[in-house]
Parts: sequence; structure tokens; C-alpha cells
Amino acid sequence: MTDVYQALIRQFRKLSQIDHAITFLQWDNMVMMPPGGSESRSEAIAELSTMYHSLLTSSQTGDLLKEAMASKLGENRQSLTEMKRTYDRAACLPGDLVKAKSLAGSKCEHHWRTQKENNDWSGFLRNFKEVVYLAREEAQARQATNIKDLLTPYDAMLDLYLTGDSSEFITSIFNTLKGQLPHLLANVIEKQRNVKFKNFRGRYPLDKQKRLCRTLAGSLGFDFTQGRLDVSTHPFSTGCRGDQRITTRFHDDEFFEALLATAHETGHASYENGLPIEWDGLPIGEARNLCIHESQSLLFEKQLFLSRPFLDFFIDKIRAELNLDETWDAEQLWTSATQVKPSFIRVEADEVTYPLHVILRYEIESKLINQTLEAEDIPEVWDQGMRDYLGISSGDNHKAGCLQDMHWSDGSFGYFPSYTIGAINSAQLFNAIRRDNPNWQDLLKQGETGFVRDWLSTKIWAKGSSLSSQEIMVSATGEGTNPQVFLSHLKDRYIYRKY
Amino acid sequence: MTDVYQALIRQFRKLSQIDHAITFLQWDNMVMMPPGGSESRSEAIAELSTMYHSLLTSSQTGDLLKEAMASKLGENRQSLTEMKRTYDRAACLPGDLVKAKSLAGSKCEHHWRTQKENNDWSGFLRNFKEVVYLAREEAQARQATNIKDLLTPYDAMLDLYLTGDSSEFITSIFNTLKGQLPHLLANVIEKQRNVKFKNFRGRYPLDKQKRLCRTLAGSLGFDFTQGRLDVSTHPFSTGCRGDQRITTRFHDDEFFEALLATAHETGHASYENGLPIEWDGLPIGEARNLCIHESQSLLFEKQLFLSRPFLDFFIDKIRAELNLDETWDAEQLWTSATQVKPSFIRVEADEVTYPLHVILRYEIESKLINQTLEAEDIPEVWDQGMRDYLGISSGDNHKAGCLQDMHWSDGSFGYFPSYTIGAINSAQLFNAIRRDNPNWQDLLKQGETGFVRDWLSTKIWAKGSSLSSQEIMVSATGEGTNPQVFLSHLKDRYIYRKY
Repeated sequence: MTDVYQALIRQFRKLSQIDHAITFLQWDNMVMMPPGGSESRSEAIAELSTMYHSLLTSSQTGDLLKEAMASKLGENRQSLTEMKRTYDRAACLPGDLVKAKSLAGSKCEHHWRTQKENNDWSGFLRNFKEVVYLAREEAQARQATNIKDLLTPYDAMLDLYLTGDSSEFITSIFNTLKGQLPHLLANVIEKQRNVKFKNFRGRYPLDKQKRLCRTLAGSLGFDFTQGRLDVSTHPFSTGCRGDQRITTRFHDDEFFEALLATAHETGHASYENGLPIEWDGLPIGEARNLCIHESQSLLFEKQLFLSRPFLDFFIDKIRAELNLDETWDAEQLWTSATQVKPSFIRVEADEVTYPLHVILRYEIESKLINQTLEAEDIPEVWDQGMRDYLGISSGDNHKAGCLQDMHWSDGSFGYFPSYTIGAINSAQLFNAIRRDNPNWQDLLKQGETGFVRDWLSTKIWAKGSSLSSQEIMVSATGEGTNPQVFLSHLKDRYIYRKY
Repeated sequence: MTDVYQALIRQFRKLSQIDHAITFLQWDNMVMMPPGGSESRSEAIAELSTMYHSLLTSSQTGDLLKEAMASKLGENRQSLTEMKRTYDRAACLPGDLVKAKSLAGSKCEHHWRTQKENNDWSGFLRNFKEVVYLAREEAQARQATNIKDLLTPYDAMLDLYLTGDSSEFITSIFNTLKGQLPHLLANVIEKQRNVKFKNFRGRYPLDKQKRLCRTLAGSLGFDFTQGRLDVSTHPFSTGCRGDQRITTRFHDDEFFEALLATAHETGHASYENGLPIEWDGLPIGEARNLCIHESQSLLFEKQLFLSRPFLDFFIDKIRAELNLDETWDAEQLWTSATQVKPSFIRVEADEVTYPLHVILRYEIESKLINQTLEAEDIPEVWDQGMRDYLGISSGDNHKAGCLQDMHWSDGSFGYFPSYTIGAINSAQLFNAIRRDNPNWQDLLKQGETGFVRDWLSTKIWAKGSSLSSQEIMVSATGEGTNPQVFLSHLKDRYIYRKY
């Protein structure tokens, strides 16, 4: 058993070296590469991906796993389970399907960019039907590897991003939100009716914003000897232990978006850099999944950076770097950053309305994959959902409707719910941090964030994938994902204006 | 035959994808990576290098090559020859020797850094003897793969950097230089006795220098949509077609070194980017070797950038960017940049004395590898050579003597001659360019460098490795490497002050 397990460790560490190369070549592609490098880079990444896939799904890996799973698993049970999960996810799809999916997804996504601009739903639909067809095939193939735990094909897609959280569980959470958010939203809007919001517009030189973002990342514990902060079209986070690469984007006519993105990506990077060193390169040592990942980024962005006491500390840095006038105090910043207003675009939505955008997408994509809804019916269902949940209608303006997001165009069904499950988890984790650190407001007012990192490091980051999402939540907070804690957070922030 | 050749093409293109990954991971390592990434990066590069070596030396590659070489080679003869050369170079060394060499080289080089500072020759010698022992083993193993063309073990090492140029050929060229340079040097020094040189010192902000270097690279034809210019500890050039990464280094108390390095690296990058597209990823499509590579970088640095007419064009850019006073005209810049003075340090040497530094090293390393000199005798031979060739002695100051260069510490014997063969080739190529473009001075005065690039593109870059070094020189200039052309260049520049 030990020999077999050691052989598997060598195999997975080798895979992680190939993954290291792909990771940093992709980072370079997004952040550094001149346009002329694009063709060679695509070819190199494709070749490395093929090598990765061949090695992972080789009969050698398969046989070792079979032998290991058949013997006494002992202390390596969870590690082997995660190895097996990684193997199954790659091996369960026929090569032809992977290729067809990749081609159809690339084509649909590529054209989506212009079809979105041109509001061309019917043009999009022509490519998208193939994407949906292949995603249904994929979901069924994935479900077949673990028919016991995956009750619907859509559950098999969810499993990629929210491993272990079933659609039944998510539906019940989302039903709670659907039941309470519209009423809460109306109350918040009523409460904010006469509030004076300032916008973040003005002339803010990029070099100053960049320095400010570095200061923010540093204040949130980002270690620049173990990472970089750069600029890219869309903010993202990637890297490996000791070398976390985060990016943000800047507009010189606005100062707040880059700060939010920096806090968000610092959360992602902190999780990755805090994963258990003894499991480096093994599936059990990886981040649990996207819904835990998003709980970390949203915790850093919404719970920590956007908290009233932290802004008390950080407002001086912003004012000094950007020469803001004295009307920008912590209270005004906090007020302006917490304006709530139903709107069409998910990525611009506030904390209160955001979950409703996600629920709409969840309901549509689950029906689509489980074949109780067809692609052509999406616009109608979308508009009805927007009217029901947010009271607004974009009519035939699909650019502000069902064409706004990239996710579906390349077949990433099952991804959306992790944003909101992540948001709930983040509120719940920060609630527990506050409970365990009664003086948290004083600490944040002094710019002390170490206690948050220490707590997360022990309770979340160090767990890797040794526990399921819900086990992580229970061990960290005493209960599984609970939407009531999130709703309390929204009330505390938006009705009672506590923090 | 066609099938076998096609299979070889696939194999070598796959190798070039792995090489792409290693190349850009190494660039990132030198230019972007934070210190914390070092361990993971070393492991990933080591794994990819192992994968590369295994694939290249696999019996599959070997068998395909054997089959191909045994059949009618036809138009693919040269391509197969270069594939075979690449295979042989990797396959000829026993795995144990490669490993021992790598370990001994890393150890010796690592300690060399402090031993050099401490002038600790005997400490260095302890590690260096093992490096020499293994290099002799390596040279013999390499010689054994091609005993016909490689007359001495040292020739097998030379072959790595100056493929096809034998030690007999190089010795005869170096003897010509040794016969004429000391006399020329004395004449130049006499001529420069009363010349007023200015130094390049002052306060020059890095952002201005960086912008100036970008301007210079652009003037020399570097295309920033197909490359980047960054900063690193030591200037270097790497990348792939369409994505050339060059670096330079800046000192804020001096303005000329970064410009020289930028011109030099632009030459290297231009060669790489101009290699024939139809042979991408194949050995025949690679740069011929280091002595041709160095001829391109030195042509851009010494022949083009440092030419009097180009400085006439570029002086205004320097003065404008760095706010130089009016005493810095083209003539003063050229004068100051062409001061000749025997000195101890090779990398700081001028064009006239540089070859003598190289000849000294060549004579020592060839005897060392051919076992007619032992490592302990190097300091004495070194000092005698410096006195004979340059009339100066560093005595026991090994830091300014035989400990100054890194090359030998990691076993890179055979590398040094390419600097001087490259310098000769560059003078010879530029001489031919001048002959083919009688209005070259007018063009350079207007900042036109396209005619130089066009000429090199057709005569050098497009050849890849389809010809030997000497075939390239003959087809481009009408004769093989000829030291007389280089000596004429030195006289024209340093005695007659022509250009």
C-alpha cells in the first residue's frame, strides 16, 4: 500500500509540475505577452495540456488508483479519494467529447463577444445550441461516474465548482433568499431614499492608484516577497505557493473599482498561499473548491475591506495618495460604496441584489442541463425572472440580459451558484471571526488584519481538500452554510448600518 | 521515408513546445518572479528538463533517426543532420555524468561568487578540479560520437558553440590577431594620448533611461508588438518567434551601459525573430550557433549603434531625453565610447583589447580539456599571458584575474572563442553591408536601419541551421571568417577615425 501510494504521490507531483508551467504561461499570456506571441503560446499550452491529460488518465495512474482503493486505505483515505476525484473528472469524458466541447465552446465564446455588442441573440443561439447539447452529454457522462451522490445531471456540473453541495441543498438555500431578499431590498431602498451618495469619479493617475492598491494588498497581509500585483484586462489571481500573482485593472476616471478588485484577489491569493505545505502538489492539498475560494475573496473584499472600521483606518491612505478633499471621510466612503439599486448587470450589482442575479441564472442553467428548458426559451424566462426578482425588465436588450455573461458561452454551467454560496459562507465566516475576536473593530481601526488571517489560516486554508465544503463550514463556524447569517449581515450593514 | 520524417517533425515540434515552457519560465524567473517562487520554479523546470531529455533521447526518437538516416535523405538531408546532431548531443552523455556535472557545476559556481569576492583561489580550486575532471570526461564522450571531425576532446566542446569551426582553424585566426593586435594597440594608445575623453557619469533617472532604451531598440528595428524590453541583473535575450524578450540593466549614475546592452540584445533578438518560419520547432530552423549569434549582437552594438553616422542620428534623442548639455555632440560621444586602454576585466574591455582577453582564455581552456595543463597551474599561465598580450599584471589579485569569469565554474568550456569569432564575423558582415549599400552613411544619419536588417534577414537569419557557420559567412560575404577584415575595421575606427 505504501509503495502504491508513494508511486501515486510521484505521479501527481509530476502532474503539478506540468500544471505549474501551464499556470505561469497563462499568467504571462494575460499580463506580459506581446500580441506576436499568441500563436506559439497557444500551441505550447495545448501541448502541455495534452501531456497533462495523458499522464493523468494513463492506465498507469488508473491502475495505481485501483490498487490503492482496493487495499486498506488508512490515514491516506482522503488523499486517495481526492486523487480518484481528479482522475475521474478527467477520465470520465470520452476524448471526442472533450475535443468537440472545446471547439464548440471556443467558437461560441469567440462570437459571443461581438454578438453581445450587436444584441444578436439568434446569432448566438445558433452556436449555443451545440454548446448546450455537448454540456448535457458531459453532465450525463460525469453523473455516470458517481450516480450515487449526483442525483441529476446538473448536480454533476455543480460538483465541479461546489463539490459536495447538491442542487437540492442549494435550491433550499436559494428559496430562503428568494423568500426574504425582495422584502429586504424594498426596505433598504426606502432607507436609502434620502441618503447623499457621492460617486467615485474624477481624475486619478494610474501610478498613484497602483501604489494605493499595493498599500491595500499589503494592509490585508499580501506578502510582496511571495507574489506580485500587476495589471490585466480582467482582475484575476493565480500562481503557486510562494508566488501568488494577482492583477487588478485601473480606470483613470474612477478610483474605487481597482481597490475592490485588489481586496478580492488578495483573498483568493491568501487562500492559495495558506494551503498545507505537506500536501503540496497533491489533490488533497488543493483549495477545496470555488465556493470556498469565493468565500475567501468576498470575505477580504466585502467583509474586511468594506467594513466600517477598516475604512476608518484606510481612508487616510486613500486621501493622501489621491489628494481627495475632506468631504471624503470614512463614513462618506462607506455610504457611497454600499448604495443599493436593482440593475441589469450582475458584475455591477450590489451585495443585496447580487444573489437574485445568481438565482435567476441557477434556475435557468439547471433546467437547461436537466433538459426541462430549451435554449431558445432563455430570453423569455430571463425577463420574467428579472421582473419577478428585481422588478425591472430589459425587454429585448439581451446585451443587458441573457447575453451579458461569458460563462454559458463556453459551457461553464454550474459555476454561477458558487458566487452566492461563497457570499453566504464569507458572511458566516466573518461572523465567527467577530465572535472569536470581540475587539475586532478596534483591531481593524488600527489596520490590524493579522487576526483575520490567522483565523482563516487555521480554520480554512490549512484544511486544503481534506474536508468537504460543509465539513469545513461546520468545523469553522459550528454549522453548515446558513443563509440566515448572510441575511443578518445584510440587515446589519444596510438597515442598521452597524458595520 | 516521408512518414518517418513526418514522425520526426512531430517529435521535435513536441520538444520545442516543452522548450517554449522552459524558456518563458526561465525568463519569468530572471525578470518577474518574487523570491518566494524560487523553490517551486526550480522543481518545475527540473521536471520539464527531464521530460525534454527523456523524449529527445527516447528509443522512439533514436529509432526514427536511425531509419531516416539509413534511407534516401533527399531534400531533408540537412534537416535530418541537425536533428541527429541535437539527438547525439543529448544522447552521447551517460545519465550519471550529466547528473555529476550538473551537481559539481552548480556547487562550484555557487561558491565561486563568494570565493571571487574573497580572492580565494585555493578554495575555488578544490571544487574546480572536479568540474575539470567531469568536463574532460564530457569532452571525450562527445568526441566519441564524431571522432572523424573532432580532432581533439576540446574540439568537441567548441562544437557546442562554434559548430564546425575546429580548434585548428580558430588557432590560426587567433595567431593572426596575436601577431598584429599588440602593435595596433600600441599605435592606438599613442594616437589617443592627447584626446579629451568625457565619462558618462551623472544623475540619469531610470525612467528616462528606460524610455531612451526603448527608443534605441525601436530605431534598430525591434518590434514591440513582437517583444518586450525589461530589466534584469544581467542583460539577456530569449523568447520565441513573435515574442522576443530582451533585458538591459540601468545605473542611475551613468547613461551608456544600458544603451550598449540594448543594442546588443536587439541584435540577438532580431536574429531569433528572423529565423525561417517554415522550420519552426525543428533543429534546422534554429540559430546556427553562438558565434553567428554573437556576430549579430556585436553587429548591432559595435558596428551599427557605435558607428559615427548612426550616432549623428541618435545623439539628439539622448540629449533630449537625458538633458545632456551641448558639449555632448555625436563626435564627443563617439570619442568617449571608443577609448582604448588595456585593463584586467574582460567584460569592461574595449574592442581592441577584448580579443586578447579571449585568446588567453582559449589557450588555457583548450590545454585544460586536452590535458596538457592542470587546473592548479592556471594562475601562473594567466598572469604570464596578461603580461605578454596586454602588458599588465594583476599578480595574486585573482578577482581581477582568473576568478573574474563565471564560465569555467560551471564547466562551460569552449564558449569564450565565440565572442571573438563573433566579433570578426560582425566586422566582416558589416563590411559587406557597406559594400552593398554605398549610401549607408546617409541612411544611418537619417536613422534608417532597415537596409541592414533586410540584408541580414536574407543572408543570415533566413538560413537557420541549413548551412554551417563558414558556409553562411562565404555565402554572405564571399569568404569564410577572415581576421584581416576585423583588423581593418579596428584601424578604420581607431587609427583613421573613419566610422
